[in-house]
Amino acid sequence: MADKSRLSLNTATVKSWTLEQCVEACVRHGIPALDPWRDIVQKTGAEAAGKLISENGLKVSGLCRGGMFTGEDEAKRQLALDDNKKAVDEACAIGADCLVLVVGGLPAKSKDLEGARTQVRDGIGGLLDYARSCNMPLGLEPLHPMYAADRACVNTLKQANDLCDELGEGLGVAIDVYHVWWEPNLEQEIARAGKRILGYHVCDWLVPTRDLLLDRGMMGDGVIDLKTFSSWIEKAGYDGLIEVEIFSAKNWWNKPGDDVLEVVIERFETHV
Amino acid sequence: MADKSRLSLNTATVKSWTLEQCVEACVRHGIPALDPWRDIVQKTGAEAAGKLISENGLKVSGLCRGGMFTGEDEAKRQLALDDNKKAVDEACAIGADCLVLVVGGLPAKSKDLEGARTQVRDGIGGLLDYARSCNMPLGLEPLHPMYAADRACVNTLKQANDLCDELGEGLGVAIDVYHVWWEPNLEQEIARAGKRILGYHVCDWLVPTRDLLLDRGMMGDGVIDLKTFSSWIEKAGYDGLIEVEIFSAKNWWNKPGDDVLEVVIERFETHV
Repeated sequence: MADKSRLSLNTATVKSWTLEQCVEACVRHGIPALDPWRDIVQKTGAEAAGKLISENGLKVSGLCRGGMFTGEDEAKRQLALDDNKKAVDEACAIGADCLVLVVGGLPAKSKDLEGARTQVRDGIGGLLDYARSCNMPLGLEPLHPMYAADRACVNTLKQANDLCDELGEGLGVAIDVYHVWWEPNLEQEIARAGKRILGYHVCDWLVPTRDLLLDRGMMGDGVIDLKTFSSWIEKAGYDGLIEVEIFSAKNWWNKPGDDVLEVVIERFETHV
Repeated sequence: MADKSRLSLNTATVKSWTLEQCVEACVRHGIPALDPWRDIVQKTGAEAAGKLISENGLKVSGLCRGGMFTGEDEAKRQLALDDNKKAVDEACAIGADCLVLVVGGLPAKSKDLEGARTQVRDGIGGLLDYARSCNMPLGLEPLHPMYAADRACVNTLKQANDLCDELGEGLGVAIDVYHVWWEPNLEQEIARAGKRILGYHVCDWLVPTRDLLLDRGMMGDGVIDLKTFSSWIEKAGYDGLIEVEIFSAKNWWNKPGDDVLEVVIERFETHV
């Protein structure tokens, strides 16, 4: 049974809320941490956001998100790198445990998946020096293969682990059950990730799934064996915060945020 | 450039047609082969279907499909095995090159993915003796990870190759670009499959993809580098039929079948 003291609210779960609303709600519900998306941090301003969060005694499991390293030309990739440095600064300003990276898919009009993967490696490599100098760990998040074309071409934990081997210190992984629950040899890859695990994200895979992006399930409503998954994460040595991140355009996003959070807490304590 | 003499029509591409309509259309369009689904073969009757197909001089790249080996109890799995033997008989009756296997996902109410994968291995193992005795190769088709829960828990070509290693003679793979185009080490796994390649299926991955099952693209309309994929298949030694299989509820299924086939032929010759 997961303890509420490890719960972190990924703010996409209550998508309509501002950072201020998220912080107030965390305090109201006794949720000790959050992982905000950059858009709401930027609306508040990163420094003010950091102050607001720390004054309310909240921890920050991550900042969502950097990445999107792929681009059809050098200029676009440079823009992405610049923006990622800004994201590192924002992550520092809010005291995040890591900057989560969603690495990007195929560049426009490209069918060169291997080339995109090389761009990702080079992009992360280019960002790492800066991130290291800021002491901000980068949490590479492998995304489900159904996002290979348009969001992220790192699609297995094995690929992410391989990249960590190659790029070294300062790069770790953010493991979201939604993306990797199907992966062969998952237990071994989680063990291999070990101390590199910077984030652990939970939700559930619904059957049927009606939308590739916005139909994630609440823990317990789908088919992922979350307790077994959590036991593997624990065995790998991770005892940090556990984020709940649910994109749900037709269900949870239409409910009052406080009702959603009550269910999040109950399911977190019983299903994770 | 793929030669039309290698084109095979998977009948799901013109979903509303009967087997008779598909056969007539293949003859009319100079398409030399087809892969029918079991429902339309059964409507005609397997023996009559085989006669119709051979009398029209068509080849049969496969029968779609056997599989669905997973089940919540022994009785359900036995039913599946019995039905698979019937599918082998039907494949023989129509002179198919192989019986394509979509192996099944999680049993009802189960979250035990590893258990489902064991059921699949045992199910194929249980069918193999019969299939061998009938000289009917089984074409294991790995399905995209987004189908792991509800359709097939063999989700990479690597897994399929591993199963072939384990189960031996009589089992090969059916490789559909839609399912594996994203797979890391794809070229190596295709090479490893080698002589085990029993089928090669093409279509395209659309961006955006609006439905997990029924929004496949026509070759050239998506992001898969089909020519490179085909070159890997060729290097692995496969020079057999190439199937076009497009599930498309909102686009191609709404057009007149003959119009669809004209596009299929043109795209096959220019994009595969």
